[in-house]
Amino acid sequence: MGTKILGIDPALGTTGYGVVLTDGSTPQVLDAGIIRCRRDLPLEQRLQELYEGVLELVSEHQPDCLAVEQLYTHYSRPTTAILMGHARGVILLTAARNRIPVHSYAATQIKKMLTGNGRASKSQMQFAVQYQLGLPRLPEPADVADALAIALTHSHLQRLAETELRP
Amino acid sequence: MGTKILGIDPALGTTGYGVVLTDGSTPQVLDAGIIRCRRDLPLEQRLQELYEGVLELVSEHQPDCLAVEQLYTHYSRPTTAILMGHARGVILLTAARNRIPVHSYAATQIKKMLTGNGRASKSQMQFAVQYQLGLPRLPEPADVADALAIALTHSHLQRLAETELRP
Repeated sequence: MGTKILGIDPALGTTGYGVVLTDGSTPQVLDAGIIRCRRDLPLEQRLQELYEGVLELVSEHQPDCLAVEQLYTHYSRPTTAILMGHARGVILLTAARNRIPVHSYAATQIKKMLTGNGRASKSQMQFAVQYQLGLPRLPEPADVADALAIALTHSHLQRLAETELRP
Repeated sequence: MGTKILGIDPALGTTGYGVVLTDGSTPQVLDAGIIRCRRDLPLEQRLQELYEGVLELVSEHQPDCLAVEQLYTHYSRPTTAILMGHARGVILLTAARNRIPVHSYAATQIKKMLTGNGRASKSQMQFAVQYQLGLPRLPEPADVADALAIALTHSHLQRLAETELRP
């Protein structure tokens, strides 16, 4: 059966997502892309577009869990961070309403898990995601790579936990 | 008929709300209180409690509009502000999904409208809300006063706009 992980990188404009199936050795990408909310709409309608986009993914893939990035304590652009909070809130709500467990990982933990370096650059992360998922090309835009990286991190940590539990 | 305004002061712990009916001269409080989300629950489940709380208010009162505070550009506690963003996102989503128009007002605009002073203190605001809504006692906790203040601001501005439009 395997585990289907929905990774999401929340944003108000372009939200990246990736659906990764962990089944045996190599994790496999089932779907990846972006949910785009029209910038000319009022905030509440953009949030509704996001909600419907996530709901569509949930209905189509029936993921076993949602993996998202943890909140930091410091953001360089506070207003953008608060708006991201609106998007993240809507995404978490969608998970809760559909009884999908949520796992969140710190950005440094995701980078370290995929590249061995907690301060890896965007392009290092894109390469790591491409390599570890056996993708024919670099995942683009970066939002998709971020979402896949989050899903992959959960997949790796889950496998590690299972290995440790084995008798 | 009048206009039924739902004012909400978003937070993750204690979200204040007030339902104000503007009909003729004096605005009237139909309902006011708080939606409390259990602090020991994971974030996504607290957001779901908030969502259900707001949905219940919407079903019961069928408000004509939602009034909320605008985002600032500077917050003293960024992490709290981002968590508030999660709650505000869920509240705005609930409005959008129920086709309730959203109006947002800057904190200084609300204070100025109710007390004449854009830097009014919490207790000045509570007194102004009590007086203007003819309440038997001070609205408590402050979150309820804040929510009623937002609804009152929309009510005042709406009446001003109607007066200006009159031939």
